[in-house]
Amino acid sequence: MAKNQLEFKGYALVDPARFTDLEVTTIEPKTFTADDVEIAITHCGVCGSDVHTLKQGWGESKLPLIVGHEIVGHAVRVGENVRDIKVGQRVGVGAKIGSCMQCRQCKEGLENYCPKGISTYNSVYPDGIVTQGGYSTAIRAHQQFVFPIPDGIESRYAASMLCGGLTVFSPLVTNGTGPGKKVGIVGIGGLGHYAVLFAKALGAEVWAFTHSPNKMEDAKKLGADHVVDTNKEDFAKPHALSLDLIVSTMDATPQLPIKQFLSMLYVHGRFVTVGIPDKDQPLPTLHAFDLVPNGCYIGGSAIGCKKECMQMLKLAADKDIKPWIEELPMKDAKKALEGVADNKVRYRYVLTQDLA
Amino acid sequence: MAKNQLEFKGYALVDPARFTDLEVTTIEPKTFTADDVEIAITHCGVCGSDVHTLKQGWGESKLPLIVGHEIVGHAVRVGENVRDIKVGQRVGVGAKIGSCMQCRQCKEGLENYCPKGISTYNSVYPDGIVTQGGYSTAIRAHQQFVFPIPDGIESRYAASMLCGGLTVFSPLVTNGTGPGKKVGIVGIGGLGHYAVLFAKALGAEVWAFTHSPNKMEDAKKLGADHVVDTNKEDFAKPHALSLDLIVSTMDATPQLPIKQFLSMLYVHGRFVTVGIPDKDQPLPTLHAFDLVPNGCYIGGSAIGCKKECMQMLKLAADKDIKPWIEELPMKDAKKALEGVADNKVRYRYVLTQDLA
Repeated sequence: MAKNQLEFKGYALVDPARFTDLEVTTIEPKTFTADDVEIAITHCGVCGSDVHTLKQGWGESKLPLIVGHEIVGHAVRVGENVRDIKVGQRVGVGAKIGSCMQCRQCKEGLENYCPKGISTYNSVYPDGIVTQGGYSTAIRAHQQFVFPIPDGIESRYAASMLCGGLTVFSPLVTNGTGPGKKVGIVGIGGLGHYAVLFAKALGAEVWAFTHSPNKMEDAKKLGADHVVDTNKEDFAKPHALSLDLIVSTMDATPQLPIKQFLSMLYVHGRFVTVGIPDKDQPLPTLHAFDLVPNGCYIGGSAIGCKKECMQMLKLAADKDIKPWIEELPMKDAKKALEGVADNKVRYRYVLTQDLA
Repeated sequence: MAKNQLEFKGYALVDPARFTDLEVTTIEPKTFTADDVEIAITHCGVCGSDVHTLKQGWGESKLPLIVGHEIVGHAVRVGENVRDIKVGQRVGVGAKIGSCMQCRQCKEGLENYCPKGISTYNSVYPDGIVTQGGYSTAIRAHQQFVFPIPDGIESRYAASMLCGGLTVFSPLVTNGTGPGKKVGIVGIGGLGHYAVLFAKALGAEVWAFTHSPNKMEDAKKLGADHVVDTNKEDFAKPHALSLDLIVSTMDATPQLPIKQFLSMLYVHGRFVTVGIPDKDQPLPTLHAFDLVPNGCYIGGSAIGCKKECMQMLKLAADKDIKPWIEELPMKDAKKALEGVADNKVRYRYVLTQDLA
C-alpha cells in the first residue's frame, strides 16, 4: 500500500560544532509492532530541548540525530492491538515515545516517570535503534505515546502543545490550579505563554513575572490578571505570602532570584521549575532557612502523562485556546533554532512538512 | 495572692564564649493582659535550637538570655479573656509565644507561619520586653500559645513534645501520613525518634535512616518497620521510587546525601527538612535535573500550629506514646546542652524545676 511506503528521512545534526546546520539524512525506524502507530508527519514544534540537545548542553548526543518532539500528522498504519486510533486520524507524539509498561508508574498512568522511559529522540530502543525526532517525514510510536488530536484544534496549534503545553499543564493540574487559586508564572516564553493560557483557562487568578519589559503587554493579552516586572528591586515584596503555586519556566540557573519567588508563596505553597538549564548550571544556593518561613516546597516536573495530555487537548478544544506561533517550512529549522537560542521566538516555532 | 507572687528567674546565658555556663538571673516578664496565662514551670525540654542559639549559630542573641521552649507547668493566673484554661490546670508552651492575630495565616489557624511571630525566647514583644524561655521558674503567654496537657500524658513526657514532637508531627500530618503511606525518617535523634513514634502511631509503614549503627536497634524498638544504614554505599538503590514522604531531621548541611534521599521518593513525593543548621551551612548543591526524574519536592516546615499540637497530644494520650527521655535538674543544664551538642542524648533531655 502506498501509505506504507513512507520514506523515513529528516533534517539531522551531523556536526555538533554547527548545531543549526541540519542535513537531510535517511533514518532507520523501529521495527513495527502490533502496538505501534506509524505517522506521516505534517507539523513539528521547535522546543528549547531541541536546542539544548543539539548544542550538547545536556550531554553528548547520538549522531546523526534528528530532533523534534512536538509532532502532529496522520496515522498511516495501525497495529492490530491499537485501540482508539484509526488510519487517517490526526494524531500527535510528544517528548516520550516508550516506557517499560510494567512498573508502578506505568501501571498508575504516570508513564512519563518510568525510569526506563524512552525519549522521542536521542534515546535507544531495547533493540538498539536510536530514536529520531519529528523534523522528519515519519515516525513510529507505541499507542500509549500517540495522542488523538481533537477536531477542534488545528494541527499547527496542537503541535507545540504536546511538549511545551503539556510540560506546564501537568504541574498546573497536579497542584490544583483552578478557581480560587493564585498562580504565578515565571518567564513568558514558549512554555510560559502556554502556562498563562492554561492557568487562566483552568480558572485561576494569574500573575505573570517577566524580566522582558516588551513582554508585559503580551502577558496581559495572553490572559494574565497581573504582570510583574522582575527587574524592579523588591518586586516580590508586595506579593509576599500570597501565591498558592508558581510554575517557573525560566532556566533554573544560579541567577534565578529563587528566594524572592519563594517568599511570595503562601504557607505550603509550591515552586515548580520546568526550566532545566545545561548540566553545569545548578540551582541557586539555598539554605534550609529559605524553606521554613512559609513551609514552602521546591519541585520539578517531567512533561506529563497521556491522561493529562488528553485533558489538556480537550480544554484547548473546548476553550479554543490558540498558542502564539510562527510557521516555517522544515528546511528553515536553522532560523527557528537560532530564534529559540537567542530568545527571539514569540512564542513557538512550528515547522511544516517539506520533505514528504 | 501567693500564686501571683512568682519570682521570674532562670538559668541565663551571660557570656557567649561560655555557652553552657548559665547563671541564675532575674528577668522581667511581659505585662500581663486579659489574654494571658501565667505558668509556674515544672519541666522544660532541651532542644537543639537551644544549642544553636546559645552558640550564636543562628545569629547574635540577646543577653542575658534564658533558652528553653518545651515548657510544661501549671497555670497560676488566667486572664479574663482566656477560654479553655483554668488556674491549676497543666499546660505547656512551645517554640512560639506570639503572633499578630490579624494576618491570613493567623486567621486560618496557621499562626506558626505569621511573619510577625514571636519566638518563646530571644525575640522581642512590641513593648520592647525580650522573651525569655523555660529554663526558669515561670512564663507568661497569650492563650493561643498555651496548650492544655491531656491527663493521659505525664508532664515529663509532654514537655519535649511541644517543640521536638510538634516539629515532626506537623509535616507528617500535612503530607498525609497514615495507613497505606510509606514514610522515611532521616536521623534518629531527638526529632527523629519522635518522627518514628508518630509516623508509626499514625498508621504509616516507616523506614528509619541512620548513619549511627548503634541507633539501628533503637529505631526498631521505636517502631520502625525497616532500618537503613546510610553509611552503606548505594543505600538508596533498593528503595528507589518507593517512599511517599521523607521527613529529614538531620541538619540540612552540604554533607547531607540529599540526592540519594530524593531518589527514593515516589512520583511527586516530598522531602521535608526540619533540621536547620547554622547560617553558614547551605543545602547541598542541586540541579533542576535532580527534581525531574520523579517530579519530587523539597520543603521546609516551621514547628506546628495549635490545632496540630492538640491533635498530637491527643494521639500521644490515646496511644500512650512515650518519648525516650533523661531527666535532670535545671542546674545541670550544662550536662544536657553538652549532650545535645555532642550528639550523646538518647533522645531528649528534660530539665526539672529546682529554683521555685
